[in-house]
Amino acid sequence: MTDKIRIGVLGASGYTGADLVRLAARHPAIEIGVLTANSHAGKPMREVFRHFSHIDLPDLVRIDEADWSAVDAVFCGLPHGTTQAITREIFATYPETRIIDMSADFRLRDAAVYKEWYGLDHGAMDIQGEAVYGLTEIYREAIADARLIACPGCYPTAVLLSLVPLARAGLIDTADIVIDAKSGVSGAGRSLKENTLFCEAGEGISPYAVGKHRHMAEIEQEIAVAAGVPDTRINFTPHLIPMSRGELCTSYVRLEGGASAADLRNRLAEAYADEPFVTVLEEGVLPQTQMVRGSNYVAMNVVPDRIPGRAIVISALDNLVKGSAGQAIQNFNVAFGLEETLGIEQLPLFP
Amino acid sequence: MTDKIRIGVLGASGYTGADLVRLAARHPAIEIGVLTANSHAGKPMREVFRHFSHIDLPDLVRIDEADWSAVDAVFCGLPHGTTQAITREIFATYPETRIIDMSADFRLRDAAVYKEWYGLDHGAMDIQGEAVYGLTEIYREAIADARLIACPGCYPTAVLLSLVPLARAGLIDTADIVIDAKSGVSGAGRSLKENTLFCEAGEGISPYAVGKHRHMAEIEQEIAVAAGVPDTRINFTPHLIPMSRGELCTSYVRLEGGASAADLRNRLAEAYADEPFVTVLEEGVLPQTQMVRGSNYVAMNVVPDRIPGRAIVISALDNLVKGSAGQAIQNFNVAFGLEETLGIEQLPLFP
Amino acid sequence: MTDKIRIGVLGASGYTGADLVRLAARHPAIEIGVLTANSHAGKPMREVFRHFSHIDLPDLVRIDEADWSAVDAVFCGLPHGTTQAITREIFATYPETRIIDMSADFRLRDAAVYKEWYGLDHGAMDIQGEAVYGLTEIYREAIADARLIACPGCYPTAVLLSLVPLARAGLIDTADIVIDAKSGVSGAGRSLKENTLFCEAGEGISPYAVGKHRHMAEIEQEIAVAAGVPDTRINFTPHLIPMSRGELCTSYVRLEGGASAADLRNRLAEAYADEPFVTVLEEGVLPQTQMVRGSNYVAMNVVPDRIPGRAIVISALDNLVKGSAGQAIQNFNVAFGLEETLGIEQLPLFP
Amino acid sequence: MTDKIRIGVLGASGYTGADLVRLAARHPAIEIGVLTANSHAGKPMREVFRHFSHIDLPDLVRIDEADWSAVDAVFCGLPHGTTQAITREIFATYPETRIIDMSADFRLRDAAVYKEWYGLDHGAMDIQGEAVYGLTEIYREAIADARLIACPGCYPTAVLLSLVPLARAGLIDTADIVIDAKSGVSGAGRSLKENTLFCEAGEGISPYAVGKHRHMAEIEQEIAVAAGVPDTRINFTPHLIPMSRGELCTSYVRLEGGASAADLRNRLAEAYADEPFVTVLEEGVLPQTQMVRGSNYVAMNVVPDRIPGRAIVISALDNLVKGSAGQAIQNFNVAFGLEETLGIEQLPLFP
Repeated sequence: MTDKIRIGVLGASGYTGADLVRLAARHPAIEIGVLTANSHAGKPMREVFRHFSHIDLPDLVRIDEADWSAVDAVFCGLPHGTTQAITREIFATYPETRIIDMSADFRLRDAAVYKEWYGLDHGAMDIQGEAVYGLTEIYREAIADARLIACPGCYPTAVLLSLVPLARAGLIDTADIVIDAKSGVSGAGRSLKENTLFCEAGEGISPYAVGKHRHMAEIEQEIAVAAGVPDTRINFTPHLIPMSRGELCTSYVRLEGGASAADLRNRLAEAYADEPFVTVLEEGVLPQTQMVRGSNYVAMNVVPDRIPGRAIVISALDNLVKGSAGQAIQNFNVAFGLEETLGIEQLPLFP
Repeated sequence: MTDKIRIGVLGASGYTGADLVRLAARHPAIEIGVLTANSHAGKPMREVFRHFSHIDLPDLVRIDEADWSAVDAVFCGLPHGTTQAITREIFATYPETRIIDMSADFRLRDAAVYKEWYGLDHGAMDIQGEAVYGLTEIYREAIADARLIACPGCYPTAVLLSLVPLARAGLIDTADIVIDAKSGVSGAGRSLKENTLFCEAGEGISPYAVGKHRHMAEIEQEIAVAAGVPDTRINFTPHLIPMSRGELCTSYVRLEGGASAADLRNRLAEAYADEPFVTVLEEGVLPQTQMVRGSNYVAMNVVPDRIPGRAIVISALDNLVKGSAGQAIQNFNVAFGLEETLGIEQLPLFP
Repeated sequence: MTDKIRIGVLGASGYTGADLVRLAARHPAIEIGVLTANSHAGKPMREVFRHFSHIDLPDLVRIDEADWSAVDAVFCGLPHGTTQAITREIFATYPETRIIDMSADFRLRDAAVYKEWYGLDHGAMDIQGEAVYGLTEIYREAIADARLIACPGCYPTAVLLSLVPLARAGLIDTADIVIDAKSGVSGAGRSLKENTLFCEAGEGISPYAVGKHRHMAEIEQEIAVAAGVPDTRINFTPHLIPMSRGELCTSYVRLEGGASAADLRNRLAEAYADEPFVTVLEEGVLPQTQMVRGSNYVAMNVVPDRIPGRAIVISALDNLVKGSAGQAIQNFNVAFGLEETLGIEQLPLFP
Repeated sequence: MTDKIRIGVLGASGYTGADLVRLAARHPAIEIGVLTANSHAGKPMREVFRHFSHIDLPDLVRIDEADWSAVDAVFCGLPHGTTQAITREIFATYPETRIIDMSADFRLRDAAVYKEWYGLDHGAMDIQGEAVYGLTEIYREAIADARLIACPGCYPTAVLLSLVPLARAGLIDTADIVIDAKSGVSGAGRSLKENTLFCEAGEGISPYAVGKHRHMAEIEQEIAVAAGVPDTRINFTPHLIPMSRGELCTSYVRLEGGASAADLRNRLAEAYADEPFVTVLEEGVLPQTQMVRGSNYVAMNVVPDRIPGRAIVISALDNLVKGSAGQAIQNFNVAFGLEETLGIEQLPLFP
């Protein structure tokens, strides 16, 4: 086992951290060395997540007790605002460590934008510069060399994979993008909130954070880069759906330069022809989260709009896998020169 | 009991018919005289719907066995295409009967539009002329005098109640309306289809009938009337949600003449100030289907859009109640001069 | 409106309290005068439960601010351990007030048993004596005269209604009753607990509190009374089901004196022939919670067991209605000499 | 790839067949050669199950078109009654082929019992004799040499793994076993039935096939073998739960010879100490289906009963994996001398 890459997982008691552990524990090139969770420190992982009852894992420790010399890579599943300090600290002592951050702390390149959306001063702008936005299919080459990978949010992954190639190609008007997003409840995390109780979220649908969701900042940042138009503003309207996993984004776009829905679909098909995890569905087949549950796949398609000059772009993924832990592993594989699909090739679980 | 109004329900073995029976059985002015269901004729209702095990109801009969002399009003919960002939037949013999149709057969005023969307020749254009579109809050006065009331589809009810006052007031651009709609599975009815199996519809979200849903025709017809602009074309994109009841429509609109989201909200608040079943929520409170489940209420609100010059209009209802059987009873109450809220005042069931 | 009976609801911010309010707000003989919820005092009810957005209700107040002179009856939806002191206080000043308690505080007649199961000294044994166990169908006459009605727990209601007539008639061996119980998540209340989050309770089934559930004490107490055998011990094994409402109890019993499953069914049918809310289903029809959702009905039946000399008794109800708020209203109706079904006649909501 | 073992899957359009394909497609030693589905013959698999959109698979063919020379092993996911003839046919021409049957056709050793429960004459009693009951942990050695492996039903797998070691050891009275079983809806298959529609199975719990479920025959057969007591009769009462996957069996047993719940737990812990897929949970930890979803693991435990002399044995598994396709692969691995865990090591998917 000495050939394996040793990893640590910060924040292993959240859903994102746990899904990372689920995948990492069966990844042929990974050995899990450290698991942290301040509030559960001292407990075995199986006490915190009963689905780990079947295997042995390191006990949870406090972050300040973790031995970073024991790991080659660190996955961070902490809430935003906490990862910047820890990252600086780890790099200070172990500059060779690769950090794959699943929080929002290093996604935004502009400190002012970070402050506007997260209400906090950025605590590590010196390091921010070397962070690569970990949307694998878009930034693969930079990720290969990066020491710090800032994995995108779940919604941005779904939206950007379907819109960036279109924005780059000038096929859509980036000043008029309406994104109606739907997410399963796991996107809200494991912390106790009334609106994620079974009886509140079940048998119902609720819009939330309309016009205020923090993932807007990332989406705007990357659409702006892709289109070469600064100050992009989008509409992003998320809804909570009574399911645990899965995210579907329905983006309503205005076509540029006479493009048709078919042109958009072709552009995506071309862009992702060789991608292992992006499936542009056959014409007329609509993406569903049922197509991707528990997997690292993204399914997408483009449909004509009844209003002339518009089209509908739809994408679906599992928010905890391609939207978080799976993509983190994908980036890890890229960063360590492994086969990109290693350990994340599971097919979707249906039904 | 001789003072009660005697009703018949055509198509009592579907979800819509059953919900009509549920409400009618406890309606203080209704006596249920006839229940039809061709495929289940001869059975007691409780065998077809076990939640009626607690009460006595007439046994189901075939339509051609039904005694129309025994009823003052007929509620039709049949599939489209079958109601036109029956309606003509009933009117031929019993011209005084009131028919409250929950199917799509009399909703569209233009025979060509009916044919385009339903693929059938309209079979009763002579009667069509007297049909009133049964959106109670908009057509109340005409409903009071109508012999034939064509209750709107569930989606059109949610959409039109929130958009008609805005279109009438010229506050929105009716050429640029994008409606992202989400519905519980009961909207698809009780007939056996693979996509409505628990294992297929559960734990997932699926867009369907994108650009083709028949409710678009009604919405376009009524928006056109409200705005005074013929040939209105809208985007309407429905999604199937893993819940039984409930519908939420998120409409993305472009503002006209410098209007703001607040102006739209005020317009709705004013329009519905005295309406017993339409609730314009307080500023900032987002509609959820949890607010209306099992009830005849509609909840709506308007939210600013991050894209300048746009706003988001959200409305929620229970597709089987205000979206169908409840609104049918509301129209029945209006038509018979009863208190409009009679028998449909139940508060939402939560959780 | 001066003819109406004025009520107060203690603990209106829990699911039980809210369901009481839902029913009371439409009850023709009730006027809601006081709503308390310490943690939400000062708020309008619609802020705490959005499904009340459509109607006007008194704002929530702290218990110690409530004006008991303004009410004729008090419904208590507080957690156990808190109701005894309040009850004594109210009776001290307003001895005529009727108190209908939905907590466990007055259900157990023996202070030692109360202490054993609830870990608390009983704080009002002087009043306990006049408490009537509010299982309406069993104790109707005593309820009519009672000042203090201790409504049963949800599980005991389902179990006892189906077993008490059998135990009384000596048809089952009360020393060998195995009750496998299944409940929707609302039974766990609205307080924040990890196991009732959507993602934890969804798509799964979990036994809980096996051998320790407090409702065992009530069931044993009442089976003992019915059979005339003190010190009855039962098996009661509850499971959490991914649904919001509903409870189904499958009781495995050993037959006494040569009785058959049919004898048991006949006994129940006879016992409940005139009961408005208890439905003994036709032979072979199995109870489901879908038959009773949102209603005050109980469905039950008896099925032969493949093991000779045994039978299976199944009962289903809505834990928040017949299992709590609905039965509380039923008892209120009895206590105030009203029609017993007043305000709780809604048929089940299906689907 | 020529080293891989080539397999065929009969009945690939059902949930069981699909889950077999899901696992086989990623199994390092398997190459999928043939997929049959009579009603969908000619279609690509991705049209029948959209979650296979991401990979290439053989198109579906009719059974009579399948080329059995192309495969080394056949997995059968057909309905009972159809597999006996096909098995005989395949063996007639390709006697070396291994057949791993997931239907019920070869599970019962006694033709009379088969006829009693399935209403059909057994069509291949000559072959029946060599069928090994594919409960891997119990019959591993025989499976290694078998040409025909009859995988157990999902419920029998859950029940027998938890009870066989106890029956063998004489710790429980096999004449008094009450099994209350709960299953997700996928257990009912993908065929169209009203009771498995989302709106019927959702938000509710229904007992079904009480006293008549065909899995009783297998359970009785194997308990009889384990205890050495012919003519065992058990109680088995299944319930349909609103979830897609997962099965939990709560078995109520009478203790023999002064055994305690702890003795039973110890027996199981001992029996399964070296088993890769059976987890006897720590004392006091209750099995939940959430612990095993999407995986080949079984979780079990024993809990004391409040009634003296009784205990409660609980086991949980994923009905499509360990209860069907996963166990079939496990048996395949054993039969072909592969590492037993190959291709089925995925950890449970939670949430």
